[in-house]
Amino acid sequence: MYSRSLLASVVALAAIGTGLAATAQDLPGPVQARQGQFQIMAVNIGVLGGMARGNSDYDAEAAQTAANNLVTVSQIDQSFHWPEGTDNVSLVGTRALPAIWENLPDVIAKWQAFGAAAEGLAAVAGDGLEPLRAALGPVGGTCGACHDAYRASE
Amino acid sequence: MYSRSLLASVVALAAIGTGLAATAQDLPGPVQARQGQFQIMAVNIGVLGGMARGNSDYDAEAAQTAANNLVTVSQIDQSFHWPEGTDNVSLVGTRALPAIWENLPDVIAKWQAFGAAAEGLAAVAGDGLEPLRAALGPVGGTCGACHDAYRASE
Repeated sequence: MYSRSLLASVVALAAIGTGLAATAQDLPGPVQARQGQFQIMAVNIGVLGGMARGNSDYDAEAAQTAANNLVTVSQIDQSFHWPEGTDNVSLVGTRALPAIWENLPDVIAKWQAFGAAAEGLAAVAGDGLEPLRAALGPVGGTCGACHDAYRASE
Repeated sequence: MYSRSLLASVVALAAIGTGLAATAQDLPGPVQARQGQFQIMAVNIGVLGGMARGNSDYDAEAAQTAANNLVTVSQIDQSFHWPEGTDNVSLVGTRALPAIWENLPDVIAKWQAFGAAAEGLAAVAGDGLEPLRAALGPVGGTCGACHDAYRASE
């Protein structure tokens, strides 16, 4: 799914003119797409986190749906979302550190770790609040691992 | 996947305070999530459309990846992305017409039609430029069908 050759060809294919962008609307399509996928993840984690924290009642169907959505998002091939020149040095409006492009295999591994944790969550999310809580932590861990390494803190 | 009861419970679960929002960054999470998924679709359709129009060379692997991504996005359950009060009358920054919430079964049917067309595309996208072209049209048709009915034209 994530061959280096595909990544390389796509970087060429999707090469875009970058420049300063003040608002999200102005950001290049691939940046909006990757930020959008993180928004999808945030909404679904929000549903699950709300239940885990007791801010909303546990709802097995909604929990399962949200967990399934995280698995689905993890299956989106990332090749088109990270063209060269869309780091936070080249572009205003992204927190993507240049280190991403220096460590693509590790970035991909971290994305795949998120997918694996999401699958673990989806396996139990409909089984009750305690299993959901137990499986949600590792998902958050995989989010944090990537943010710590590759997302600017501001 | 899209039961009415889930939709109803999620509308309650995800009910959010709405208000005027001037920029995408200010939009509610579910609106950013749904706009993000359309951005993911646009990027991948852009890859395929570029090949179909001859603006980029046909690349079987990239075409297959892009088509697979469309299928994957179509599998994201939409329950959390369309809370009540996020239409274009209630909120600046979205083109989602109130008719969406008056016609949820039709909206879901149109989303599923997109998924079916994307599956048709994914079945042939790696087989050559002509099959790709033939299968891309129906995908665009399903996009347009929903836009015509449920997206403001401005």
